[in-house]
Amino acid sequence: MRASGHLADHQRRYPRWELTNAELVHLLSAGVGGVILLGGSATELALRTRQLRQWAGGALLLCADVEEGVGQRFEGASWLVPPLALGRLHHREPDRALALAERYGGCCGRDARAVGLNWVLGPVCDVNNNPANPVINVRAWGDEPAVAGALAAAFVRGLAGEGVLSCAKHFPGHGDTSLDSHLELPLLPHSRERLERIELPPFRQAIAAGVSAVMTGHLILPALDGQRPATLSSAVLGGLLRRELGFQGLVVTDALVMEAIAGHHGAGEAAVLALEAGADLVLMPADARLAIDAIATAVQQGRLKREQLEASAERRRAALEGCADSAAAPEAAAQADRGLERELVQATLEWRGTARPRGSGGLNLVRVDQALQAPFLPAGAPALALPNAAGFRTAVTAADTPDIWTGDPAAPLALDRFPEGPVLLQLFVRGNPFRGSAGSAEPWGAALRQLVAAKRLAGLVVYGSPYLWEELRPLLPEQLPAAYSPGQMPLAQAAALGAIGLGADPGPPVAAPDADGFTD
Amino acid sequence: MRASGHLADHQRRYPRWELTNAELVHLLSAGVGGVILLGGSATELALRTRQLRQWAGGALLLCADVEEGVGQRFEGASWLVPPLALGRLHHREPDRALALAERYGGCCGRDARAVGLNWVLGPVCDVNNNPANPVINVRAWGDEPAVAGALAAAFVRGLAGEGVLSCAKHFPGHGDTSLDSHLELPLLPHSRERLERIELPPFRQAIAAGVSAVMTGHLILPALDGQRPATLSSAVLGGLLRRELGFQGLVVTDALVMEAIAGHHGAGEAAVLALEAGADLVLMPADARLAIDAIATAVQQGRLKREQLEASAERRRAALEGCADSAAAPEAAAQADRGLERELVQATLEWRGTARPRGSGGLNLVRVDQALQAPFLPAGAPALALPNAAGFRTAVTAADTPDIWTGDPAAPLALDRFPEGPVLLQLFVRGNPFRGSAGSAEPWGAALRQLVAAKRLAGLVVYGSPYLWEELRPLLPEQLPAAYSPGQMPLAQAAALGAIGLGADPGPPVAAPDADGFTD
Repeated sequence: MRASGHLADHQRRYPRWELTNAELVHLLSAGVGGVILLGGSATELALRTRQLRQWAGGALLLCADVEEGVGQRFEGASWLVPPLALGRLHHREPDRALALAERYGGCCGRDARAVGLNWVLGPVCDVNNNPANPVINVRAWGDEPAVAGALAAAFVRGLAGEGVLSCAKHFPGHGDTSLDSHLELPLLPHSRERLERIELPPFRQAIAAGVSAVMTGHLILPALDGQRPATLSSAVLGGLLRRELGFQGLVVTDALVMEAIAGHHGAGEAAVLALEAGADLVLMPADARLAIDAIATAVQQGRLKREQLEASAERRRAALEGCADSAAAPEAAAQADRGLERELVQATLEWRGTARPRGSGGLNLVRVDQALQAPFLPAGAPALALPNAAGFRTAVTAADTPDIWTGDPAAPLALDRFPEGPVLLQLFVRGNPFRGSAGSAEPWGAALRQLVAAKRLAGLVVYGSPYLWEELRPLLPEQLPAAYSPGQMPLAQAAALGAIGLGADPGPPVAAPDADGFTD
Repeated sequence: MRASGHLADHQRRYPRWELTNAELVHLLSAGVGGVILLGGSATELALRTRQLRQWAGGALLLCADVEEGVGQRFEGASWLVPPLALGRLHHREPDRALALAERYGGCCGRDARAVGLNWVLGPVCDVNNNPANPVINVRAWGDEPAVAGALAAAFVRGLAGEGVLSCAKHFPGHGDTSLDSHLELPLLPHSRERLERIELPPFRQAIAAGVSAVMTGHLILPALDGQRPATLSSAVLGGLLRRELGFQGLVVTDALVMEAIAGHHGAGEAAVLALEAGADLVLMPADARLAIDAIATAVQQGRLKREQLEASAERRRAALEGCADSAAAPEAAAQADRGLERELVQATLEWRGTARPRGSGGLNLVRVDQALQAPFLPAGAPALALPNAAGFRTAVTAADTPDIWTGDPAAPLALDRFPEGPVLLQLFVRGNPFRGSAGSAEPWGAALRQLVAAKRLAGLVVYGSPYLWEELRPLLPEQLPAAYSPGQMPLAQAAALGAIGLGADPGPPVAAPDADGFTD
């Protein structure tokens, strides 16, 4: 079940999905086996997980979607560049990428223990071979099966070295969809042969590396099961995953509350169907009490065998026994690995051009998905402060700000709505569950051409999407300062702006870019 | 000295002003007497204050600018409507306003103890008789001396009842300025007679109510001292405050790091000058070590008398002895008084009109100071969610978003940049230290007329500034749904939108508005 990482009920940001403390106490004492957490800081989460363990009166699975470091969700812990950054680095420096992926896993593991989590819901084992994927995207470790698998396996080893459970997801592969299963049920029309070639290898590698759990995807794969999504399919879970791939660990569903499942089945029936199909754990049923009642009824009616559920419970116990203890003081929870954060940013930063952006009176046009919800832009964020120090005034454009587009394909940017002078473009674009990637529909290529033609482009930084960077890079004049960082966090902003001469200590970057061709 | 409320150095938002933990340990062990805190949540602050007390090895003044409830700054604690809301209520229901002000102080005190603070830097005793005041504004308890003083005194009693220290500020009165002393040094040209009539009465009332401390303002008052700002003036501190007003408690400077002081004197000299003038405590010198060295030198040189400093230390000891213990568990720090929060919102809400905003396809135009820094608009905030549920699309306009103005005084709003249909206006405007009130320069009156003439105004809500509400209210058609809430927090949004028929449970407000004439 899902809980807020905050301690008090009134602090919950999503009360529709996050149970009250009274509900949590009741359900934990009734034996619910795990909690998924979101919200609150690293320090608060350390207190919260201690509280939940006390309410459970024993070992409890405590997990979170901290694929990009615990600091991605819980302020104060390490916030790392997204996994796809290492997939990209792997093309240039495979050994370094693999070593960094294992340290990445180790960092997630240490931070997870510090906040009291024992289960990291990663690695994503999906192969992001569809750049329009709105929900996987930079969360994947690569866009090629072998690279994604090798890096995911290294991440698993890193986590295991810290005694923290891992989870390969979203089985059998969510990379090649352009739908968000939080909202709809995607269909993958691929043949079994194609699945063997593209989707399955990373899962095989993660299993070989000893991954603790596999999470099912809410996806229809007619080649495997024409009726049921993977999450509810015994052909996929019992057949492919258990028998063919030989996976012995925990099988957990993706959140059953997602529209792709909750919209098609009741909260109770979805849980029963998932267990029938071979899942050990059901994650976030739309209503925990209804799910429990439905499972109990299914056992009484013989629909579910008690031995199967006992085998699942045994797998959970075995997984928990393998976990390291989490006994750190809450005061020590917010201990980010700044060295690794920085090394990952530096290793995956790309830049080109030589001129420094022209100085004063210009506009710092910052594109984000939602102006009011941009945690990577706190007060004093480098993307705002550094251009400001160089004389640029900031304007934030997003889905929730006034429109900046003219509708004219040749000159799409409404330049008359901005002050005169050069424009520094900073584009924060990546896929986001629930929100997709609004940026993909915006004509940034044409806008860039328009600014270049008007001699008003001061510089470009893309944060997040390599696909947008690949699209825009060829359009840039040779000397124009431009940079790409897979990460969007403040450290990445400081590094990218430093690389184009807008650093706190302006100057050329320390290391020269190399083989990837991005110095053209 | 100032510290972040976060536990780890890397979490500091303002590293220029917030000391590192190593510096804090050093200076606390060297005997620095107090810390002012900003940043972090209520839960984190409870851990942080415990840590600081341990480093100090004894009693320590722990304070924060939590004038509007601890939750104003530290998420999770109570977040109350600004004091001026009760000044406004006092015109209609004086007894109720006074009772609420005392409960307001009690709430601040309880919450302060829960997070480990023993000193609330309030009440503001300035009389906000200058609507253009960029820094006091709704932080004042009234725009008339008697009302402001009575409410401030009630607040002091509420705090004292919880065993928490209070602080009347900014002596001798910061209400009638249009400059922000964080940035410049305001000059008040008033005669002594005028000061007796307007500025001083609230301080006299707070002192009579037993206020623990008085904070000096960075203001030049030629009638009292033509050379030195109040903070550094012995005529103001030793003469007026101690001798004439008979104040026996702690005299503390406002932050010496502010430009009005730091820009005119060195970090060390400013501290010495303040003590020479009669201050007991210097707050946030620009450099704590320099300040300590300068004070030590001044004692050695006989510029400062040791007996004077010992008397100040004794006042600090006496104040700390009167404080209640703070021994609550961090788990209990985030316990907001939702009942009082709600009652204050309900009691101070104003509304008019009868029609419900027209429904679908419209625009929810939300005006804030900074789109990226609007803590009152978290994910799911009612100001976004409720109009969205009624078919409105949100656009946020702020100093950091693309311009929405045409420059045409008769039709200032660039309506062509927005989708067709009705416009719901929600204006979040109040004075803010460092940021002023950008809204006062925006032609919202003319914009409102333009929308009314185009028959496109769906409704209006003003959050914060009563002055903007007073300006816009007469321009509204009789039936047009409109509301004003002094508070800007989510609870206030839900109440104001509920009052104009956009609530989760739409319908007429429960209580009818009364004597203040706002139903015209």
